[in-house]
Amino acid sequence: MKARVIVTLKGGVLDPQGKAIEGALKSLGVDGVASVRQGKVFDIEIEAADREAAQHRLSAACEKLLTNTIVENYSVEIA
Amino acid sequence: MKARVIVTLKGGVLDPQGKAIEGALKSLGVDGVASVRQGKVFDIEIEAADREAAQHRLSAACEKLLTNTIVENYSVEIA
Repeated sequence: MKARVIVTLKGGVLDPQGKAIEGALKSLGVDGVASVRQGKVFDIEIEAADREAAQHRLSAACEKLLTNTIVENYSVEIA
Repeated sequence: MKARVIVTLKGGVLDPQGKAIEGALKSLGVDGVASVRQGKVFDIEIEAADREAAQHRLSAACEKLLTNTIVENYSVEIA
């Protein structure tokens, strides 16, 4: 089963990397960029009996390794 | 306008970071993970007259800065 996990910073958390990209885009002449926030994406091929089992495994992967739940949120989409 | 840009490695490109995550998940007892590939996500707030103009600006941002088009693909979703 193919799945995509997206990890993004929570609302209040500062994102200096995003800010740097925002500045760089302005310098490069890309207009209209009001804000940029960077996150991570993981494309995972997961073996499981059904979607529910896959969801369970992917949530475990997020909680244990992929996400710092203090400052990040995650979402899981199973294809 | 809110947009999400997802940048992923092209098919044949090695992803040592993904491989490391795969190994780490196995060590942590997350079963069934057949492969992991890591990419980047950018949540961008963009000002533009319409969706077409926004799409145009975001493609420019990807081509100029966000994506290394030799080894990466990008996709743009406008909310």
